[in-house]
Amino acid sequence: MSAKPLNDLSQLCIHTITTKPWNIETAAQNFSKAGVKGITVWRDALTGRNIKQTGQQLRDAGLEIVSLCRGGFFPSIDVSKRKAALDDNRKAIQEAAELGAPMIVLVCGSDPLQPLEESRKQIQDGIMSVLPEAKAAGIKLAIEPLHPMYADTRSAVNSLGQANDMACEINSPLVGVAVDVYHLWWDPHLEQEIKRCGRNNHLYAFHICDWNVPTADFLWDRGLMGEGCIPIKKIRSWVEDTGFQGFYEVEIFSNKFWSEDQSVFLNKIIKAYQEKS
Amino acid sequence: MSAKPLNDLSQLCIHTITTKPWNIETAAQNFSKAGVKGITVWRDALTGRNIKQTGQQLRDAGLEIVSLCRGGFFPSIDVSKRKAALDDNRKAIQEAAELGAPMIVLVCGSDPLQPLEESRKQIQDGIMSVLPEAKAAGIKLAIEPLHPMYADTRSAVNSLGQANDMACEINSPLVGVAVDVYHLWWDPHLEQEIKRCGRNNHLYAFHICDWNVPTADFLWDRGLMGEGCIPIKKIRSWVEDTGFQGFYEVEIFSNKFWSEDQSVFLNKIIKAYQEKS
Repeated sequence: MSAKPLNDLSQLCIHTITTKPWNIETAAQNFSKAGVKGITVWRDALTGRNIKQTGQQLRDAGLEIVSLCRGGFFPSIDVSKRKAALDDNRKAIQEAAELGAPMIVLVCGSDPLQPLEESRKQIQDGIMSVLPEAKAAGIKLAIEPLHPMYADTRSAVNSLGQANDMACEINSPLVGVAVDVYHLWWDPHLEQEIKRCGRNNHLYAFHICDWNVPTADFLWDRGLMGEGCIPIKKIRSWVEDTGFQGFYEVEIFSNKFWSEDQSVFLNKIIKAYQEKS
Repeated sequence: MSAKPLNDLSQLCIHTITTKPWNIETAAQNFSKAGVKGITVWRDALTGRNIKQTGQQLRDAGLEIVSLCRGGFFPSIDVSKRKAALDDNRKAIQEAAELGAPMIVLVCGSDPLQPLEESRKQIQDGIMSVLPEAKAAGIKLAIEPLHPMYADTRSAVNSLGQANDMACEINSPLVGVAVDVYHLWWDPHLEQEIKRCGRNNHLYAFHICDWNVPTADFLWDRGLMGEGCIPIKKIRSWVEDTGFQGFYEVEIFSNKFWSEDQSVFLNKIIKAYQEKS
C-alpha cells in the first residue's frame, strides 16, 4: 500500500528539541495555535519546572503528550556509572509519570571502552532492572535503534533487527521500539523488520526528519522532511501497514533551523509534514 | 582463536592515500626502506605517470602491488552517467593490468535521487557489465561494503551481508569482497558474515584503521589502529580463521596525520600495526 495523504495535523507531534530556541511554554503555545496535536518532551525542557503543572499546561493547550525523551545510556565499563544510569532511568520514569507521558524513548548508550556485545548485554540488563518501576508507574519504554555512526558512545543497538530481538527477549507488554527514519533508512531489512515489529506489537513510536546530502555534522545537521534522501512516505507506508495509528513525531536537530525564526520554521515543518512526509 | 602475533611486516600493505602528502615514488621508497611489503595504489597517485613503468618501479622496490583503488560508482539516475561509469571502470581494469595489480577495490556508489534498491541493482548490473573486460585482463573485483553513513552518495552496499549476497549472486571467480573494519565494526552479524565470506572464497581484502571517539569529520578523520574503539584484533582473528593469508592494508584518511611529517607517521603506522592491529 502507499502512504495515506496527511490531510490534517491530527497525527503531527513535534519534539521540544526540534524548536530548541523556544522554551516549552512558548513551544506549547505555538504548536497549539498552529494545530499541532502532539508533543514529545525532552527532559532538559523541564528544568526548573513543576513537572505536574507543566504536563497540565500542555494538556490545557490541547496537546497530547506522546513521550518523554530520553532515558537509556545504560552501558559503562564502570559499575558505579551503570548504577547511576539506573537511578537516572528511575528518575525519568518518575518524571514521565508526573508529566503524564505514557512512554519514555530510550537512547540506549554504548561505551567505547568495552565490546559492543557487552554494552548490548548491559542495555538489556538495564531495561530489565528498571522494568518494575516502569510497571508500577504504567510507563512504556521504547528502545530506539540509532544509526551505526553512533555505535561508539550513543547506542550499541544500531538496527531495527537488534531492537526487535531485544524487545522479544525482554518480552514485556511495556517494552517496545521507536522507529526513526534518520537512523534506519539505509537498512535493506527495514521493511521486513517494521513488519515484524508491528506483528509483535512492539511498534511504539515513529520519528521523522531527513538525511541531508551532504550532511555537515554528525549530530546537528538533520534535514527537514523532503530536503534529503530518505524515502519517508515509503517507510511511513510500511509503518501504517502494521496498523500503527500513533503520532508521526518530527525530531530535527539542526543548527541551521535553530538559527532561524522558529515561527517560520514551524510553518516549514507543517508544510513538509503534509507534503513530503 | 585469537589473532596471531604480527612479529614481522610480511603482511603489511599501505594505501598510497594513507600517506597522501608523498607522491607514489616517495611513498614506495619509504615503504620499502621501512620494510613494508605491500602497496595499494590509488588511481590519483598515477596521474601523469607511465603506469607500466610505475608498476615496475614498485616491484623493483620490493613491494607487492595488492590492489588498485578504486573502481565503482556505478549508480546514477542519469543513464549517460551510468554509461560513463562503465567506461571508467573499464579504464580502471586496463590501468590495473598495466600496473600489474591483481585486483580493483570497488566503492560501489549510490545516487540519492533514486531508491537504494535501484542503486543496488545498478551496482550489480554494472559489475556484470565490466566482468568480460575483467576476465580478459585477469583482474579481480572486490565489492567493498561502506559504512551506512555513506549510503547517500558513496555506496548503497552497507553491510558485509549485502556484499556477500551480491558476490554470491554474481557468482564469478573474479568477484569477491573487501572487508574494512572502519565500515563494518558495528555490525552484530560481522563474525558470521566474515565466516560466510571465507567459506565462499569471497574474502579478497582486509583493510584496517580505527574509529576515533569522537569522530570530527565524515571522511577525513580516521584513526590509527589502537587510537579508537574498533576491536581490530578480534576482527582480524575472524578473518584469519577463514584461512585468509593476504595483506592487512592500512587505509587511513586523516587531515591530522596528513599535516604531520609523513616519516614520523609511517613509524607510527608500523608500531600500531605490530602492537594494536
